[in-house]
Amino acid sequence: MQAIELTRPSLDALSRVQHPDPRDPGVGRILVRMKAASLNFLDLAVATGAYPGARYPNVPIADGAGEVIAVGPEVWQVAPGDRVAVHPKAHWIAGRSTAETAGAMRGVTLRGSLVEIAELDAASVVKLPGHLDWEEAATLPIAATTAWNGMVAGTVGPGSTVVLLGTGGVSVFALQLAKARGARVIITSSSDAKLDTARALGADEIFNYRADPDWDRFVIDRTHGVGADLVVETVGGDSIARSVAAVRQGGTIFTIGFLGGVDTRVDLLSVIGKAVRIQGSNTGSVADLAAATAAIGAHRITPQIERRFALSELVEGYRLMERGGHFGKIAFTLDW
Amino acid sequence: MQAIELTRPSLDALSRVQHPDPRDPGVGRILVRMKAASLNFLDLAVATGAYPGARYPNVPIADGAGEVIAVGPEVWQVAPGDRVAVHPKAHWIAGRSTAETAGAMRGVTLRGSLVEIAELDAASVVKLPGHLDWEEAATLPIAATTAWNGMVAGTVGPGSTVVLLGTGGVSVFALQLAKARGARVIITSSSDAKLDTARALGADEIFNYRADPDWDRFVIDRTHGVGADLVVETVGGDSIARSVAAVRQGGTIFTIGFLGGVDTRVDLLSVIGKAVRIQGSNTGSVADLAAATAAIGAHRITPQIERRFALSELVEGYRLMERGGHFGKIAFTLDW
Amino acid sequence: MQAIELTRPSLDALSRVQHPDPRDPGVGRILVRMKAASLNFLDLAVATGAYPGARYPNVPIADGAGEVIAVGPEVWQVAPGDRVAVHPKAHWIAGRSTAETAGAMRGVTLRGSLVEIAELDAASVVKLPGHLDWEEAATLPIAATTAWNGMVAGTVGPGSTVVLLGTGGVSVFALQLAKARGARVIITSSSDAKLDTARALGADEIFNYRADPDWDRFVIDRTHGVGADLVVETVGGDSIARSVAAVRQGGTIFTIGFLGGVDTRVDLLSVIGKAVRIQGSNTGSVADLAAATAAIGAHRITPQIERRFALSELVEGYRLMERGGHFGKIAFTLDW
Amino acid sequence: MQAIELTRPSLDALSRVQHPDPRDPGVGRILVRMKAASLNFLDLAVATGAYPGARYPNVPIADGAGEVIAVGPEVWQVAPGDRVAVHPKAHWIAGRSTAETAGAMRGVTLRGSLVEIAELDAASVVKLPGHLDWEEAATLPIAATTAWNGMVAGTVGPGSTVVLLGTGGVSVFALQLAKARGARVIITSSSDAKLDTARALGADEIFNYRADPDWDRFVIDRTHGVGADLVVETVGGDSIARSVAAVRQGGTIFTIGFLGGVDTRVDLLSVIGKAVRIQGSNTGSVADLAAATAAIGAHRITPQIERRFALSELVEGYRLMERGGHFGKIAFTLDW
Repeated sequence: MQAIELTRPSLDALSRVQHPDPRDPGVGRILVRMKAASLNFLDLAVATGAYPGARYPNVPIADGAGEVIAVGPEVWQVAPGDRVAVHPKAHWIAGRSTAETAGAMRGVTLRGSLVEIAELDAASVVKLPGHLDWEEAATLPIAATTAWNGMVAGTVGPGSTVVLLGTGGVSVFALQLAKARGARVIITSSSDAKLDTARALGADEIFNYRADPDWDRFVIDRTHGVGADLVVETVGGDSIARSVAAVRQGGTIFTIGFLGGVDTRVDLLSVIGKAVRIQGSNTGSVADLAAATAAIGAHRITPQIERRFALSELVEGYRLMERGGHFGKIAFTLDW
Repeated sequence: MQAIELTRPSLDALSRVQHPDPRDPGVGRILVRMKAASLNFLDLAVATGAYPGARYPNVPIADGAGEVIAVGPEVWQVAPGDRVAVHPKAHWIAGRSTAETAGAMRGVTLRGSLVEIAELDAASVVKLPGHLDWEEAATLPIAATTAWNGMVAGTVGPGSTVVLLGTGGVSVFALQLAKARGARVIITSSSDAKLDTARALGADEIFNYRADPDWDRFVIDRTHGVGADLVVETVGGDSIARSVAAVRQGGTIFTIGFLGGVDTRVDLLSVIGKAVRIQGSNTGSVADLAAATAAIGAHRITPQIERRFALSELVEGYRLMERGGHFGKIAFTLDW
Repeated sequence: MQAIELTRPSLDALSRVQHPDPRDPGVGRILVRMKAASLNFLDLAVATGAYPGARYPNVPIADGAGEVIAVGPEVWQVAPGDRVAVHPKAHWIAGRSTAETAGAMRGVTLRGSLVEIAELDAASVVKLPGHLDWEEAATLPIAATTAWNGMVAGTVGPGSTVVLLGTGGVSVFALQLAKARGARVIITSSSDAKLDTARALGADEIFNYRADPDWDRFVIDRTHGVGADLVVETVGGDSIARSVAAVRQGGTIFTIGFLGGVDTRVDLLSVIGKAVRIQGSNTGSVADLAAATAAIGAHRITPQIERRFALSELVEGYRLMERGGHFGKIAFTLDW
Repeated sequence: MQAIELTRPSLDALSRVQHPDPRDPGVGRILVRMKAASLNFLDLAVATGAYPGARYPNVPIADGAGEVIAVGPEVWQVAPGDRVAVHPKAHWIAGRSTAETAGAMRGVTLRGSLVEIAELDAASVVKLPGHLDWEEAATLPIAATTAWNGMVAGTVGPGSTVVLLGTGGVSVFALQLAKARGARVIITSSSDAKLDTARALGADEIFNYRADPDWDRFVIDRTHGVGADLVVETVGGDSIARSVAAVRQGGTIFTIGFLGGVDTRVDLLSVIGKAVRIQGSNTGSVADLAAATAAIGAHRITPQIERRFALSELVEGYRLMERGGHFGKIAFTLDW
């Protein structure tokens, strides 16, 4: 069967290779014919050598979706024909993570999604709701799981105010899930066009930080001086200081991104005085993906995909992520 | 009746004054004859003008204990003769704080403990276990409540490892409460004598950071590379970076102090990769004090008091805190 | 000023009396000009002598709403002119209840709402969103708080299925709040007309148990054999057994009613095998009412009132509740 | 290799059989040389046909411990030579259970422990602390996990009062774990000798219900009328009514046993009025076993074993459980 390999950390080093066909799956294992994959920032980091601990050569890309085509003995979770999303944190089944379950990741230390047939732990996939096509399904694992866990961390519901920074994959899922949970959403972007799209998806308040960088002041203003219950911190760097300023007494900063910088300054007086919780997060478990997927199924949420690339356009997909011009997710159709 | 007033932010401005005797307490109110008070770092900050928003003139000192001598109509919590600890966050009865309930504090914006008879909300005091004398009881409100809430934030119990920084009031209560909850405690100090005392109180591992500042490496070493479940961050500043290094995957940094600096740098990669929770905290509610007091009563924990000062030695007490040479708490006997 | 008193446990014993005008409010106290009240089953139980521990004579009715007309010293929660809902559990400010805070209740052991001007603890009222009129506001304290706490107990959100039994006050608020939280709702009634109204308010599935009592089988069927996440058990008696059958593995039965009987049989094999949680509840705290009110404000939820009675129709209101023919709540306009 | 099979539901139907030696373990799988097993009431129910859904013929007994002798590809949890406890709920790795993960159980629907070499999911075993011998380790999975989850459900710690009914396996682990968590323990038995042993293990209050069945009144008395925080309900039947009477406002009844009857009557007025939580439970996840094991390791808790039987005495072991005369656990040494 065919696969794509990243032989070394370079976008020039993505090549189509031949892998042996997988054998019959063992106890608790399944075979999944991969149909689509989606890109996350970490995949770009792996491809450019910026992700510490990534393995080379490796089959790249963490997120994927496909159809179960064979199941081994004692598999009870799925059956042949089931459509599934494949969770990248293959060892993190449920509950809290350990260093081991948080560290193992498809496309990084384990084989990723760009393969015709994946051999997987049956406990690491989640069945899909019917309204999602393959590419939409492939966008769920990292971004929807992360967004959902942000909602859980912030106990988001009616009466909550959620702040989202930008319109990347996690932010857009967070927008959709926060609205599904009945919360009010304030979202920022440097693009009025993207803000219009966010508004159409349900955002209650939009803020363009190009003209005015002080989005924290906007949040305080629109919450009558109280502050937001949750900021989904997809940016990092200097943004953290604004997040601390923007949350309310007892508020939560769900910290998942560092495009704005990995080094940040925090004002402890505010963190202590307002009893702020800064909660780092790195995706979630298969059970978390299942919960996010259930919410997406129940509300028939459509994942927002900026563009669907063919396998022949693989590098273009990475380049689009590099430029950062996308709204929501970037997907690949696995059209071998 | 007599009271002490801090007329302006200066230790020279503590003077004994005459206040009118309180009238019969109104609905839900009580009169408490104050017997003892204890000092926290915030009292020193108020007395030196370093606490933003403090009121002058005011009766100083947040923590106190005394005897109920009269109760108004509809008081069900206490009766005359009851011995009580007086909670400084007089409006924060239970549950999560708001800006208002976190902000109002006896000795800062409300009248403090250095008064013969305090007129109080019956909901803001907690009955005392019999084994505590007045000065011991007066040490509970801020320090024991904070320490207890750290234990709750870290879900501390048998199998947990707790790291404590130094031997101030919160750290020593945290030591005693962590041991009562069955956890393992690693404590740091620059003084071997204090570490010996901590060991006698139950500390499992001690570390003198005078010779070797890398307490985080010690923690990693003594947890077989895993890291601690909880660091009670009483220091702030550069210490936060070590705390991030010292906690385990999913660990908690309970952030309450800033003697080491209010400005801190945080490495987001670690916070995100290890899913660290940095939880700011500023004391707790009356219900939290009640829970801490129940634990202290059940285990007959003796609050550690460095020295008990007479009212005539008031400034000396503040000076001792300023020098930082104390182990545990500093108390005042209200010997008018 | 005028008040209504229930001199003994009988609907014939409701009489208009003259009370002394309240004096200026004391520390932390406020005066509220009562504008409306709403009826709960417990008020009927008090009026008929079925509520153990109720005080006679007493001003009846637990729930109410009105306008703040005066505030005492140190009141920070409200100001004159504020519109507030008055919480019946006047001593239960936040957090978990104790025997004392759960036991004290306006209209039962404390003075109730049928009074021109109520003298109250400022911590026991909640400010109202603008879209509610007085009668609507008066329906919130017991029913909306209880319904909200059911949602919290069941962690209700998108992907959850909630089962509601009948269309009384709590069920209808639970319907509105569950929909605001993004859940799916199955509701039962013996009346097709009421089920149509429930459907118009957002119910996803309706079930008339008059023809077919097996609503539990309906729930299992409509959840593909899985069962519901939450049953809000407003009935009790034999209904509990059906609730146990209807919930999923790890599901919650939020138990608040006993019109169907105070004595119930439970099959332990199911409770244990499915790890069911049966959570008794008796209203909630002022903070819980505030959370429910925030959700109601954010979603502009309109409390459903079957009928608004004048004070002159007081007994008729009780009689309507006795007959049980109402959908949602029964309110009184305090038109002295 | 050898194994014991239960060919039909009868203690006469336990026979030694020959099984094929296991092949090299597949992906994520391990081989464990079983060293010991321990008996739970469910094993007796399986052996007597009282356990619905049990499979025959099957290798019996849920709990076991042994040494890892081989690991398949991608196994990161253990290495050859590791000593492990084998969790019976082999599919319930962490987090909340589903019908599927709660339903599958070694010795019931999956192969049990009485086999020379078990082929297992590497995610379903937990490494052992050094102080436990094989038989002690084999007692952990069901009883210690259940007892630990009771502690978690009741948020047990210093200041809590825990009530334990009898001195079976779960009760004795609950006693040891509650003491490790700093709680106060009241334990009941019909045997003064067993109560003396419980006292020696740390029980604070003992109650012999032979002379006086009203243990609930004893609990109320010894908690100054307040009631217990947690009852670990290992009995069921009529005992539940006493448990409801014995818990405090907001207390928890952790319901896991039904030797006293599967049908129980509950007084809803108390459940509602006191906001009681009745939490059914059926063991727990591998992660829960790991947490219990960590606590047992940290406190060097010695599991209490009434008697260690050789394989030749298998039926005698079952008979001892049937008679109910044991304190703590019954173990088997797998001395093929």
